[in-house]
Amino acid sequence: MYLDIKEFLDNKEYVMLKKEIEKEKAVDIADVFDDLDKKNSIILFRLLSKDKAADVFSNLTAQQRIDIVGAIQETKLNEILDDLFFDDMIDILEEMPANIVKKILAESSEEERKLINQFLSYSEDSAGSLMTIEYVDLKKEMTVKEALSHIKNIGIDKETIYTCYVLDRKRKLEGLVSLRKLVLSDAELFISDIMNEDFVFTNTLNDQEEVASLFKRYDLISLPVVDNENRLVGIITIDDIVDVIEQENTEDFQKMAAMEPHEKEYLQTGIFSLARKRIVWLLFLMVSATFTGIVIRKYDEVLQSVVVLAVFIPMLMDTAGNAGSQSSTLIIRGIALGEISLNDYVKVFWKEFRVSIVVGSMLALLNFFRVLIIERVEMDIAIVVSLTLAITVIFAKLVGSMLPVIAKKLKLDPAIMAGPLITTIVDAIALIVYFNLANIFLNL
Amino acid sequence: MYLDIKEFLDNKEYVMLKKEIEKEKAVDIADVFDDLDKKNSIILFRLLSKDKAADVFSNLTAQQRIDIVGAIQETKLNEILDDLFFDDMIDILEEMPANIVKKILAESSEEERKLINQFLSYSEDSAGSLMTIEYVDLKKEMTVKEALSHIKNIGIDKETIYTCYVLDRKRKLEGLVSLRKLVLSDAELFISDIMNEDFVFTNTLNDQEEVASLFKRYDLISLPVVDNENRLVGIITIDDIVDVIEQENTEDFQKMAAMEPHEKEYLQTGIFSLARKRIVWLLFLMVSATFTGIVIRKYDEVLQSVVVLAVFIPMLMDTAGNAGSQSSTLIIRGIALGEISLNDYVKVFWKEFRVSIVVGSMLALLNFFRVLIIERVEMDIAIVVSLTLAITVIFAKLVGSMLPVIAKKLKLDPAIMAGPLITTIVDAIALIVYFNLANIFLNL
Repeated sequence: MYLDIKEFLDNKEYVMLKKEIEKEKAVDIADVFDDLDKKNSIILFRLLSKDKAADVFSNLTAQQRIDIVGAIQETKLNEILDDLFFDDMIDILEEMPANIVKKILAESSEEERKLINQFLSYSEDSAGSLMTIEYVDLKKEMTVKEALSHIKNIGIDKETIYTCYVLDRKRKLEGLVSLRKLVLSDAELFISDIMNEDFVFTNTLNDQEEVASLFKRYDLISLPVVDNENRLVGIITIDDIVDVIEQENTEDFQKMAAMEPHEKEYLQTGIFSLARKRIVWLLFLMVSATFTGIVIRKYDEVLQSVVVLAVFIPMLMDTAGNAGSQSSTLIIRGIALGEISLNDYVKVFWKEFRVSIVVGSMLALLNFFRVLIIERVEMDIAIVVSLTLAITVIFAKLVGSMLPVIAKKLKLDPAIMAGPLITTIVDAIALIVYFNLANIFLNL
Repeated sequence: MYLDIKEFLDNKEYVMLKKEIEKEKAVDIADVFDDLDKKNSIILFRLLSKDKAADVFSNLTAQQRIDIVGAIQETKLNEILDDLFFDDMIDILEEMPANIVKKILAESSEEERKLINQFLSYSEDSAGSLMTIEYVDLKKEMTVKEALSHIKNIGIDKETIYTCYVLDRKRKLEGLVSLRKLVLSDAELFISDIMNEDFVFTNTLNDQEEVASLFKRYDLISLPVVDNENRLVGIITIDDIVDVIEQENTEDFQKMAAMEPHEKEYLQTGIFSLARKRIVWLLFLMVSATFTGIVIRKYDEVLQSVVVLAVFIPMLMDTAGNAGSQSSTLIIRGIALGEISLNDYVKVFWKEFRVSIVVGSMLALLNFFRVLIIERVEMDIAIVVSLTLAITVIFAKLVGSMLPVIAKKLKLDPAIMAGPLITTIVDAIALIVYFNLANIFLNL
């Protein structure tokens, strides 16, 4: 951003700003709205040309859009919505207050209204909710020349013209032709000669995560979406998929940190909404920690007679928890990226077992000398602590690698089996091992 | 995958298979190699047509490639490498044994050799390592018609023709023209009339993470890469960026689970390599847990006189750790996605503080009744435990939200400030609060 828009606004140099701002990219202009008060936001928005306004509008936050919709005239709003691609318009309608949506629908044609209602009904994470209807359709009887001139006539309003869709009279999808192929082919060839009939496609009801993996697997830049009768209903473009990939990753991060997934950006989410997303899992994990309490209660005589054992409880619990999280994170991520399938689970289990033996015994060995030399405890206590460490690291890694696989088998999301849950389980294991070894080695 | 390739191979129906396999997608064929022994791998590879072979080859794992390179003739290998896009060829050369790379270089022309060596020298995470040289270049004096016929002549070997690059005589980048614009414009217009001069670009040395955020921010499908004199040296396409996004996310997951990032897929990584990536952080965290040991040692008289206090240590530590991880994960992710900038940190701090008060007091209240009714402890102990819980949740959330921001300020990666490190810190805080409150409320 070369231009200091805020300075122009503060100095009321609107004529200059109107000229300068046309050179800036819409997403950069949209960012400026974060730092403006409501009055300046509306002034800035009014200074934008019609085309730019639509582009900037689709890059604003929901609250900023609602502020602007409240301040501009209805005709201007309709102009902006007309200028948006269909998928962006649907996204915006979804977050507008109901009275505004009603007004917009009232001014649309019968056909448009039906289409909008159909798109609003697709569930949020489905292929249907990602698609747009601005695609180029061709007939297989067309020549390359005819197709190119058809594209020239209608292409300006299409979200992408790089893949064209060959439809029969019933709008059934027969093949794809890339613009690349059209431009590189002889003008006299027929579309049926050059179209690709082995194309990848999806259904409106498929989950967006599956759609994203199709894009990744086949290096797609767009994907046709068909209904149950194989009729083309829309297309999905790569820019929306990049957002889906980040969104799915964010959800996994949140689940793995014991939160329910957020839909909105952090700064746009309210205090109580943030608190609610966090408290459910914290409560569950707090209550399940009762279990570790029971273990300590059961062995409180051991603890009472050798209080120094308590000194190592935090270290043992933390190391076990960390070791378990490492395994579960790797496996969850491997499953999410399709690198690890359910058939690999014996391989995974065996690998984690060997890794845990290497890691567990090295940690135990180093810990043995550490507690003996630095913490200056007696030999038998050093042995109990280190042996517990080795055994719990092995347990932790096995539990950490098995739980996500079990979740997947039960058709649950592996990500909820991550760190916090595993920590709680391996904590209990660590304590049971610890007190039992203490009983044996310290002759209690 | 409709075709059971393995069955064809087992039944030695090679002629049929050769015919059928041409219809399959390269990435689907490459997957089959995972389940084949070396002998069948080589047979299958030899059955592929020249074009398909190159495509399949670039989708194999490093080990599978090395196996095949060992078994096929040099001329065939050279054919395959010639057929690959330049960026894929460089990736493959990077993992080949040195003797094979030497042979390939020996057979390349002087000019090619220089180019290959230049590309091999870009550091692994730089824009340079992602780019390819197969782009379409135009001159601004060309008409649209001339440009389209130029594309028709040379486009077949280019990785993308959807964005064309307008260069001056010194190969300085003057503008971009999309194929969309070319196809939709009048044939007589000059490129200089329709080219976009306000384009986004990057430098060979820039980090791939920055490159990925340019793609996300501006919804790009390709990006020009220039050297320090603004000369075009290559382009980056969206399919490589999708991989970069997943790779960066994977690295963040690994760092947040206290591992050093892996470069290879889980199943392709050896036991000792996996163990090494994990043990460094485990050791660091284990040793820093000495600190919590010191706290307990210091207060062991408190513990000795009221042993029941030990029962609640795991619950307090786990809840504090989980609460801290929630905050740090949200902040780290917000920073990584550019939703939270350093200027927002006062806002973030204040927000987390308010969330922590809501979450902390609710947890404390529920816990108070839980320990009183279910665990049947005395009133004063229930007060100490619940008050500790509230205070440590607040501390944990503040530490969890500040550490990633501090890391960012110190130009460290926020992701390493995640869960495990915060757990260790808040554990110590939890214990100090706990024993001090016990001292006060229990009159010890």
